Amino acid sequence: MTQKITYRDSGVDINKADLAKQKIKSLAKSTFTPEVLSELGKFGGFYAFKKRHKEPVLISSTDSVGTKLKVAFMMNKHNTVGQDLVNHCVNDILVHGAKPLFFLDYIGAGKLNPKVVKDIIFGLSQGCKKVGCSLIGGEMAELPGFYNKGEYDLVGFIVGVVEKRKIIDGSSISPKDQILGLKSNGLHTNGYSLARKVIFDIGRYKVGDYVKELKTTIGKELLKIHRCYAPSIFDIIKRYEIKGMAHITGGGIGGNLSRILPDGLKAVIDTRAWPKHSVFSFIQKTGNINREEMYKVFNMGIGLVLLVSREEKEKVKRNLEKVKEKVYHIGEVISGKKEVKLIC
Amino acid sequence: MTQKITYRDSGVDINKADLAKQKIKSLAKSTFTPEVLSELGKFGGFYAFKKRHKEPVLISSTDSVGTKLKVAFMMNKHNTVGQDLVNHCVNDILVHGAKPLFFLDYIGAGKLNPKVVKDIIFGLSQGCKKVGCSLIGGEMAELPGFYNKGEYDLVGFIVGVVEKRKIIDGSSISPKDQILGLKSNGLHTNGYSLARKVIFDIGRYKVGDYVKELKTTIGKELLKIHRCYAPSIFDIIKRYEIKGMAHITGGGIGGNLSRILPDGLKAVIDTRAWPKHSVFSFIQKTGNINREEMYKVFNMGIGLVLLVSREEKEKVKRNLEKVKEKVYHIGEVISGKKEVKLIC
Repeated sequence: MTQKITYRDSGVDINKADLAKQKIKSLAKSTFTPEVLSELGKFGGFYAFKKRHKEPVLISSTDSVGTKLKVAFMMNKHNTVGQDLVNHCVNDILVHGAKPLFFLDYIGAGKLNPKVVKDIIFGLSQGCKKVGCSLIGGEMAELPGFYNKGEYDLVGFIVGVVEKRKIIDGSSISPKDQILGLKSNGLHTNGYSLARKVIFDIGRYKVGDYVKELKTTIGKELLKIHRCYAPSIFDIIKRYEIKGMAHITGGGIGGNLSRILPDGLKAVIDTRAWPKHSVFSFIQKTGNINREEMYKVFNMGIGLVLLVSREEKEKVKRNLEKVKEKVYHIGEVISGKKEVKLIC
Repeated sequence: MTQKITYRDSGVDINKADLAKQKIKSLAKSTFTPEVLSELGKFGGFYAFKKRHKEPVLISSTDSVGTKLKVAFMMNKHNTVGQDLVNHCVNDILVHGAKPLFFLDYIGAGKLNPKVVKDIIFGLSQGCKKVGCSLIGGEMAELPGFYNKGEYDLVGFIVGVVEKRKIIDGSSISPKDQILGLKSNGLHTNGYSLARKVIFDIGRYKVGDYVKELKTTIGKELLKIHRCYAPSIFDIIKRYEIKGMAHITGGGIGGNLSRILPDGLKAVIDTRAWPKHSVFSFIQKTGNINREEMYKVFNMGIGLVLLVSREEKEKVKRNLEKVKEKVYHIGEVISGKKEVKLIC
């Protein structure tokens, strides 16, 4: 005998997805700028592209939160990972001089929990609002058998715009240019597979454990929000010639700064030039990880790197400090094989 | 005693990811139109936005392949799911009259297998090339402990453009408008959780089983590529007034057509107006699923719906047939409560 089965029996609940969509609509709408022409719920997001540029270039990027999500799962705290994601994506296009226009998200889960979805979208909308970016669309997919119970993956897509002649791509970097580093807020969104292995498997810490050295609990330290540098940088790039910027994510200072170095130029970074956040020494010590590996995996306290001429270095630094950025003069550019050399 | 551990020990292999990136670069580059200003590998994709429109509106959408991927895993065949994804996204913005500009993808996996990644990107690049869409970026994330061994999730993000006054959004639909349906290629990318439950759990079929009724094997039937309607439709929307279009995905004809119906209008669909692909009767019979449920979950043979005036109906139909589309006159619009009524 066969049985009558419905879509719900197979693990996909369309009504529940509809309910979650209703809840997120108002959060998403709170991010809409006047350029957004439609509400969510049709087949695509509509964004009027205003003619404010002579030669507009759209700059886009995609990223996911990565295994930082595992910490969110352990803490059952889902209202900050959305900000991590938006800030990561915003920084990725910011380094080319682009202003964010709109953002779309993807949540994949075995089962969608409307409360969790609402929290995720809350974080996304917070991140978007801070930089005038409209959360115009997204997809929530229920994929039975793909994800562990209670878990999800979270992916973001951003589109921004920059005037073609104002694209920052590192091509004007020259010898004697100076390198400034802006303080990160901790791990940001990178290195969590290693950090979790060290802290939870080797160190046997629990998320609720208070660590004196960190002045907070493991969970709170690991969920600190990835910093968004756009509000500070938008003003600076209007007033000064920023020759190159690198968002320090997976691959560390070396891996990311080398992406924008022209051939024949070496960046020399003095790693003694800035104080290290205690989370890095804590992980290094707990995992007995060597120094080179630490610099390859983590941002090591620097979330964004700026390259400027010697003449403008002090002015840029001072103006960033005025808007409460912690800025360090961390190195300079010299002629040589294209690489990033870390001095300690 | 502690042990020296590296990022690789924790399950993330940056070198392997770099290798895969090299392989996909040439595939992605093969899709580049002259508007693409940079290669992959920096922080964002660059797309020059040409001033071809008076009031350009960017239309964007995101989607994933969903549990159709499980069939790809069972078949160990990964070079078509990328086309499913691109085609799905292209159709989603096509229904608003938008021409695709660029596409970004996200692949999340526990471990990235470079061969599989290359196959996925091959599919994406095939789909993109067919519609002149540039695959300008993407993210491959290794998330140890998130996905089952050998599995991945695949998400796509598309941006297209349309002249504001040419946006197709259903608002001009009026009573007596006629409804045309374009043939689908089978399940496309929706209803796979139910289809798999029915075919593999209840019917106990294997992917290699030949089914006479389907004239092919289970695996080949279920991996048939989601049709892209853009090449046929681009020409039609230039020449005729298409009042509304709906891409028939999850939610079926009713769920998707109702998204674009104005208030006070009912769409009456005669489900006897087109021959059904045998995959639908096979699933219905094997799972003993009732008719209403089938129409809610599957496209039932219609992948795209067009709404046109009575005057233009025949011309539109004939012109679509000239470019080898199978087109059926499936219903009409009448005054009434906003809903889609299926007659059988």
